[in-house]
Amino acid sequence: MAAETCSALALAPLLGANSTAAAQYLCSQFDTVSLQLTDAKSAIDSTYLLFSAYLVFAMQLGFAMLCAGSVRAKNTMNIMLTNVIDAAAGGLFYYLFGFAFAFGAPSNPFIGRHFFGLKDVPAPGFDYSYFLYQWAFAIAAAGITSGSIAERTQFVAYLIYSSFLTGFVYPIVSHWIWSADGWASAARSAPHGLLFGSGVIDFAGSGVVHMVGGIAGLWGALIEGPRIGRFDHGGRSVALRGHSATLVVLGTFLLWFGWYGFNPGSFITILNSYGPIGSIHGQWSAVGRTAVTTTLAGCSAALTTLFVKRLQTGHWTVTDVCNGLLGGFAAITSGCSVVDPWAAVICGFVSAWVLIGFNKLAEN
Amino acid sequence: MAAETCSALALAPLLGANSTAAAQYLCSQFDTVSLQLTDAKSAIDSTYLLFSAYLVFAMQLGFAMLCAGSVRAKNTMNIMLTNVIDAAAGGLFYYLFGFAFAFGAPSNPFIGRHFFGLKDVPAPGFDYSYFLYQWAFAIAAAGITSGSIAERTQFVAYLIYSSFLTGFVYPIVSHWIWSADGWASAARSAPHGLLFGSGVIDFAGSGVVHMVGGIAGLWGALIEGPRIGRFDHGGRSVALRGHSATLVVLGTFLLWFGWYGFNPGSFITILNSYGPIGSIHGQWSAVGRTAVTTTLAGCSAALTTLFVKRLQTGHWTVTDVCNGLLGGFAAITSGCSVVDPWAAVICGFVSAWVLIGFNKLAEN
Amino acid sequence: MAAETCSALALAPLLGANSTAAAQYLCSQFDTVSLQLTDAKSAIDSTYLLFSAYLVFAMQLGFAMLCAGSVRAKNTMNIMLTNVIDAAAGGLFYYLFGFAFAFGAPSNPFIGRHFFGLKDVPAPGFDYSYFLYQWAFAIAAAGITSGSIAERTQFVAYLIYSSFLTGFVYPIVSHWIWSADGWASAARSAPHGLLFGSGVIDFAGSGVVHMVGGIAGLWGALIEGPRIGRFDHGGRSVALRGHSATLVVLGTFLLWFGWYGFNPGSFITILNSYGPIGSIHGQWSAVGRTAVTTTLAGCSAALTTLFVKRLQTGHWTVTDVCNGLLGGFAAITSGCSVVDPWAAVICGFVSAWVLIGFNKLAEN
Repeated sequence: MAAETCSALALAPLLGANSTAAAQYLCSQFDTVSLQLTDAKSAIDSTYLLFSAYLVFAMQLGFAMLCAGSVRAKNTMNIMLTNVIDAAAGGLFYYLFGFAFAFGAPSNPFIGRHFFGLKDVPAPGFDYSYFLYQWAFAIAAAGITSGSIAERTQFVAYLIYSSFLTGFVYPIVSHWIWSADGWASAARSAPHGLLFGSGVIDFAGSGVVHMVGGIAGLWGALIEGPRIGRFDHGGRSVALRGHSATLVVLGTFLLWFGWYGFNPGSFITILNSYGPIGSIHGQWSAVGRTAVTTTLAGCSAALTTLFVKRLQTGHWTVTDVCNGLLGGFAAITSGCSVVDPWAAVICGFVSAWVLIGFNKLAEN
Repeated sequence: MAAETCSALALAPLLGANSTAAAQYLCSQFDTVSLQLTDAKSAIDSTYLLFSAYLVFAMQLGFAMLCAGSVRAKNTMNIMLTNVIDAAAGGLFYYLFGFAFAFGAPSNPFIGRHFFGLKDVPAPGFDYSYFLYQWAFAIAAAGITSGSIAERTQFVAYLIYSSFLTGFVYPIVSHWIWSADGWASAARSAPHGLLFGSGVIDFAGSGVVHMVGGIAGLWGALIEGPRIGRFDHGGRSVALRGHSATLVVLGTFLLWFGWYGFNPGSFITILNSYGPIGSIHGQWSAVGRTAVTTTLAGCSAALTTLFVKRLQTGHWTVTDVCNGLLGGFAAITSGCSVVDPWAAVICGFVSAWVLIGFNKLAEN
Repeated sequence: MAAETCSALALAPLLGANSTAAAQYLCSQFDTVSLQLTDAKSAIDSTYLLFSAYLVFAMQLGFAMLCAGSVRAKNTMNIMLTNVIDAAAGGLFYYLFGFAFAFGAPSNPFIGRHFFGLKDVPAPGFDYSYFLYQWAFAIAAAGITSGSIAERTQFVAYLIYSSFLTGFVYPIVSHWIWSADGWASAARSAPHGLLFGSGVIDFAGSGVVHMVGGIAGLWGALIEGPRIGRFDHGGRSVALRGHSATLVVLGTFLLWFGWYGFNPGSFITILNSYGPIGSIHGQWSAVGRTAVTTTLAGCSAALTTLFVKRLQTGHWTVTDVCNGLLGGFAAITSGCSVVDPWAAVICGFVSAWVLIGFNKLAEN
């Protein structure tokens, strides 16, 4: 916008002789308007980002209910404690270390280097709401793991894991992808980027959040082994049913609700300060489309799971549909901002088959 | 606003001889400001509409919990499956057919004519978020029915019904009322409109959503008959209590929460691009008032139900109050944007009596 | 902004002879822009305030679930009825009396004097959304009490108490602190203010909401005495466990979610119309920081409680952590807008010890 700012020096000669005062008067008017516009834009973007952060935070409630419903009744208090502690310990550790590791300056391709809190944040005006948004992501990464090692983990071990993940592991991975100089960042100059210089696009964190949480969970599950009773003496899989489908549905819908903060919110701003001003399809339209692609991928995955599972088991099962739905959301998360709605439908369809296939594999 | 746009042609002669360059300079400044303002306005309206859509979506969770709590324990999984599938099948069918039937162009008074997806949407810049908002309405219409035929419906039958309602029935009815050329639209020119040319005002869909869902539910209930055990051998009504008042309250509060997206959100924009610019009571004030009238109607209906039911039964019953509350919301939904707060209180009061009366009738 | 408004009278002479028409043309352009900016700003602030109000309302659902989970199963319906009625009766009584007592004009240092509804509200453009926001606060004050007198209160007595609190007590206390001429208001001129003229800062209502609710609850508990079975014949404390930790966690997370409307929302606007225009750290940044301090105080209090209770009892207990978390939020509420994040961490730490100490005291 700099080039279009009113300049009294440029305007005065145009107005003719002796018109410096007129030019100054007019330009000070434009400056006032411009300052007010900037103020208003920041307020819009902050409103958008804060409420998106609140939605992402609500996912923690979704995880808690989903996990509580998916375990046996005796283990609900234990697993919900891990969800509450993810949020609480995550708050402290992401504040003390995580945010600085992820977005602090000066930084190198591997890690941001400032310790302790909220100094030298890259984007002025977004410091605090951006911190809140990123904190909600960090605890979501921790929350994903919680379910993978349910019903067989010592609380102290989980506490150490959760603090380490939100304070160290997740921040560093997010630095790699989302900070301007991360080694896998799309913003990096060509010769250094991944994949022949193209870098990685992981818009809302299929990899950064879901894969990090998922891999942590997979290692945890491998180390701890299956739950007692999960396989019988002959090694055959025995289903351990959760105690409450109601809580599973409650948790799934809350995660769906929160995902609208997660995916469309990952634009960070709803006013694109960098794009062409006044274009008909501005960033707000891309934000809306992302909400739609997210929705459609989940819907398509849910329906696919419904029918495939029906063929497999002969039953229509709501908890299977919920699992499929969440798989569809996780699958669309990285590409949600760039795919067309029809492609999102296909993405959800494929993700359902992948999930069902891996579930089958895990049982053998 | 066109008339007030800066015109270098008009300005140059005013500035005097040889001042074309000055006029162009000044007008280009105004153009820049104007483009940025337009951008900011769209961002505000999109933020408002998207978060309203998320709230309306949360109503689906409300329906699921309300229904789960209102049925007997053995039927919870079945009914929650219908709620999840309403949202998922609704997403696909509203995307594939529904939105085009409702708002596609070219259209006639009965139906919009484009098939398949999101083409030729009337309001550029709002295409995707408006689609999301309308999808949330469509699944709400389906969700309303779910409770009416609870505990006695084959899942496959429900799946067909739900897809048909969100993909066909609801879109067409909403086209009649809410699209510019629908036969019952208030926007239609006088000689063709309903009621001596005045058209129908159904601001947030008491008729389009709640009545469509309700009538579908009524027919379903008539066809299927009462639940086994609902009436004894002598034909006397036997109350079949839901298994969890906690879930009923959870669902009711979630529906209340979501209704703030449903009613005030139905303004679609919070900046009235069409109204007088700079008026003290702009659209934001009307939006706020709608949130207030919605609240008061629900509160008034809840209190009325509380006391009337106490006189009828001798008990203070929370599930009755919840039913009354939701009845009050459904009643105010069509007029929420035009009535005064005191009238909303009366609307809620009357709706409670209507609900109690029809409940009495249904039992005989 | 008045001084910076375009004045054709001032501009014309600057432009030179015969240029009145040019000056008028240019100033009318600026006026149009200015009107549109004002419109956009009000829309931003309204969006912010309305969605904050919806979040605060969601706290009522949090109270209902927290209370339901904390009582024994037989008392859930009773206590949830009080939560629903808080909201419903609160709606009517705050509309009929409360809002006018709190913010009506003309007013004196003790009370606002207009009865009946929404007339003469101080801030035009914010009348209805501000009413909704304040109503949500009023019912939160009532909701806090509900838990204190659980399992031993006649419903009719509670109904009278709740109406009186939301219609009279809370409005008057909030008038003292938050209206411009309240006797304890920070805005009051020095010689009349509290504490040597400095007035009281209670940004989001630690005192106005939580202390009012808490004191009402304490008196209620003193009058009614402990629940039957709460102490054994020798006077020793007997823990009466709630029937559902799941509901306690659900309620706690919902309250956490709603607190983001409560604390950051208490700025009322996200665009600071009064502060320096265009400053880098505008009100949106203070709003974001408030969300962060709120989060950190809760997290710190939760972790402190976790470890102290573990030392006390030998168990990691999720319901204790939830209590500590909510205590941390209540503690930070008054100062949330002015403290630094590190201070919020300390605030939470101290609040946990205070809560544990008073719990110990209450048992003796």
